[in-house]
Order: sequence, then C-alpha cells, then structure tokens
Amino acid sequence: MTDGQKVGTYDFVAEPFHVDCNGRLTMGVLGNHLLNCAGFHAEDRGFGMGTLNEHHYTWVLSRLAVEMERMPKAYERFSIQTWVENVYRLFTDRNFAVLDADGTPIGYARSIWAMIDLQTRKPADLLTLHGGSITGYICQKECPIAKPGRIKVTDTAVVGAHKALYSDIDINGHVNSIKYIEHILDLFPIDWFASKGLRRFEMAYVAESYYGDVLTFSREAVSDDEYDIEIKKNNAEVVVRSKVMFGRRPSSPQA
Amino acid sequence: MTDGQKVGTYDFVAEPFHVDCNGRLTMGVLGNHLLNCAGFHAEDRGFGMGTLNEHHYTWVLSRLAVEMERMPKAYERFSIQTWVENVYRLFTDRNFAVLDADGTPIGYARSIWAMIDLQTRKPADLLTLHGGSITGYICQKECPIAKPGRIKVTDTAVVGAHKALYSDIDINGHVNSIKYIEHILDLFPIDWFASKGLRRFEMAYVAESYYGDVLTFSREAVSDDEYDIEIKKNNAEVVVRSKVMFGRRPSSPQA
Repeated sequence: MTDGQKVGTYDFVAEPFHVDCNGRLTMGVLGNHLLNCAGFHAEDRGFGMGTLNEHHYTWVLSRLAVEMERMPKAYERFSIQTWVENVYRLFTDRNFAVLDADGTPIGYARSIWAMIDLQTRKPADLLTLHGGSITGYICQKECPIAKPGRIKVTDTAVVGAHKALYSDIDINGHVNSIKYIEHILDLFPIDWFASKGLRRFEMAYVAESYYGDVLTFSREAVSDDEYDIEIKKNNAEVVVRSKVMFGRRPSSPQA
Repeated sequence: MTDGQKVGTYDFVAEPFHVDCNGRLTMGVLGNHLLNCAGFHAEDRGFGMGTLNEHHYTWVLSRLAVEMERMPKAYERFSIQTWVENVYRLFTDRNFAVLDADGTPIGYARSIWAMIDLQTRKPADLLTLHGGSITGYICQKECPIAKPGRIKVTDTAVVGAHKALYSDIDINGHVNSIKYIEHILDLFPIDWFASKGLRRFEMAYVAESYYGDVLTFSREAVSDDEYDIEIKKNNAEVVVRSKVMFGRRPSSPQA
C-alpha cells in the first residue's frame, strides 16, 4: 500500500451558517469535520465505529490540537486529509491537513485516540486488535505543528459557567466534544477573533460530563495571546483542559 | 419549465455529532440544512444571496415551521426538496419536504422570506425585482402541514437567560438563526425528546439581536404538549417568538 492510499481526502464547503462574525469557518465546525473525517477514514479501512460497535469497542478522543494559518471563508471549498501517524498499545496518533481548493495547506491538526471495550470500559490493545491491522495504515506524512502539550491551570478562579442541557448532549449521553469548543471560545472577546486571530486550539478530554452537570470554566493567561482553560463539572472533577492561542504567524495571510 | 425542474433536491447524511441523545438529527442541524437548501436553490436560479449581494439586496428569514413524522437517525441518508410556493410583493413562501433514502416523506417545512435593500434597509418588491423572474419558479407541490400561525405569549415570566457570545454570532453580526433554535429547545427536559418526541417547531424572527445582548426566555403552556416561547433582548424588545409542539402523530413510526 502506498502512502497515497493510506491518506483519506474529504471535500467540504464552508456553509454560510458555519462561519463566525468574520465570515470564517468556526473552530467548532472544523472540529466536527475533523472528527467526521477520522470516522470516514477508519470506517473505510475496517476499523471504524460501525465495525467496532459490532465487536463492543469504540474509539474515544483523548487529545485534539488544531493550528491554522487561516480559516476557510464562507462558501470557500476546502478539503481535509487524514492519516494514521503512529499506533501504540493504548493510543493512536491521527493527523490532519486542511487544504484550500488549490491543494495548498492552510492548517494542520493532530489527535490522539484510545479504543475502549464497551463491556469492560477498559482500553483495548491496538497492536493485537484485528491482528494489529491498523498498523498497516501508518503513514509518513508531514504534519508541521507541535504535538499537544501539557496544560496546567493553577488559577482556578471561575470565569464562566454553563449548565449542560439538551443541545449539549450527544448520542452517548455525554456533552458533545464539539460543544466544549464553542463554550471555551465564548470565554474570549469577540473582537479578538478579528484583531488577533485564533491560531491554535488544543483540547484534552479528561472525563465525561452529562445532562444537568454545571460546567465551570477557569482561565489562566500564559501570555497576552495564550490561555490555558480548565473545565470542571459540579465544582469537582476536571472534564476538559484546553489551550487557546491567538495571534497569527507573521507569514500568515488572512486574506 | 416543469414542476420537477422547479424543485431542488439535495442529499444529506445525519452526521454522528449532529444527532441528539436519542441518535436523532437535531432540529437545529435540520434547520441549518433547510436554510442551506433555500440558498442553493435560489443561487442556482439566479436569485440567491451571492447574486443579490452584488445588487445590494439580501434575503431575510421571517418565519420557519418544521413538522416531522420522525427525524433521521445517525448515519441515515436523507434528502431535502425545496420549492417556491408563492410570491407576494413583500414576501415569498418557500416550502420543503424531507425524504428518507427511499424517497418517502418523513417531514415538511414552510418558510417565509422578505428581501431587503441593504442600502435603504427597506423591503424590496419581489414582483418587480429582476423583472419578477422569481414568479416563474412558483410550483404547485403538496406541503401537508399547517402554515406558521400567530404566536402570543402573555405570561412573560422569565424561565431562562443567555448572553449572546462569540459562538452565537453569524457573518452579519447577528445572533445566528439556528442558535435560537438550540437555546429554545434547551428550555425543555431532555427526556421529553424521547418520551414525547418533538413534532413541530415554529420560529418567527421579529428583530435582530447582537453580541453581548442578554436574551431572556418566556414560555407559556398552551397544552401539555404545546408551548409558546418569546425571546426578548435586554429585557425590552421581542426578538423571536416560537411554538414547540411535542407528541408524535398516532400514525408516526419512531423506528
């Protein structure tokens, strides 16, 4: 199998209600597309949710990092490539490239996934599952953004709160991975998205939250443009940690 | 032109992060698809946003009513048909059918739109615009659901509040039409969506709201299964009225 066959490519258009006040695709919608691409790619190769659920396994997203030169504009066509970078016993690294209509990269993403046995709730050994067939898809393709780093929030003053309601909850009864992204970005002034630009966004999914849980948000400034976020549920357990980095690279066109 | 050519048909699949806790497409996502289909259909026929903006006009959604026998399930393929039912001087009626993969209708929607002159902010005369060419697309196709009715909320006790933040705001700087749908459905207990089922949803867009506006929600029970909602901004102007009807028709399969 060539590396070309190992990479899945999926086409999108930035829909008019999926862009923000600056006419740019939102990070939440991009995150949704990335997760869908992961699903398509895995399903097409025999290790997707549909196949796994029959065998009582499911993928669980552990980390996501997205770094964009620019976000697609309303009505702009773009594509997302995804591939498996590494497979370890308990985790796999899946990377993404976001390309404009000409095939030029405008951003990249990295994600880390575990597989859970739905009956025992324990992680599965990816190297032995299905005879380790997933390792056949490992692909050496460049992903020139930093790996998700450690996020540590020491200032736990609460800067926002949200009660998880119907619209937050996914098919598994958990708060939707994408909804956390929206709630986190809502902690920032709207004009920053135009004046500074959102450059990098990281999520660490630590625990699940559920309908009725009160999510509280703490935010610590690492610099003027870099913020670490922690979400707790019901003032106790940490659910999500996130890093939000504003400020475009000097080279970035935001045209 | 035959009625077949006047109807636009667009294919979708219910994405895994677009379904609710019952594995059913959310009303917000369906609403987004309906509005996109309206846009595709109008653009393909020369009276879409892209064409209009060049001439300083834009479509404004005034009313939306959606009534479903059932919502598509996760990963289910479905299609949306849309057509123009009527054109009046200041408004046009656009209808929709939602079809399962076999082409059987599983729901319908009605919408009412005005066209605004962006320079004067006044409504445009649809019967004379572009030589009245939109009237050539009027189509006699069945839409067997009631038209949007009058919604009147007399009990204005506040049952919920939401401050409009970054994620709520669309490219025009207004709270996104779809976000209102999510916020309204969040007023109801999550188990109702499984036990009663959401049958009909109506929106009347009365005024715009903006970043930082505090939206307050009032809700009045017409019956155990029917609720009228009013959203005000900053405890003053009414922004949206909505009617939410639970309870499946006796004939409806929710399989």
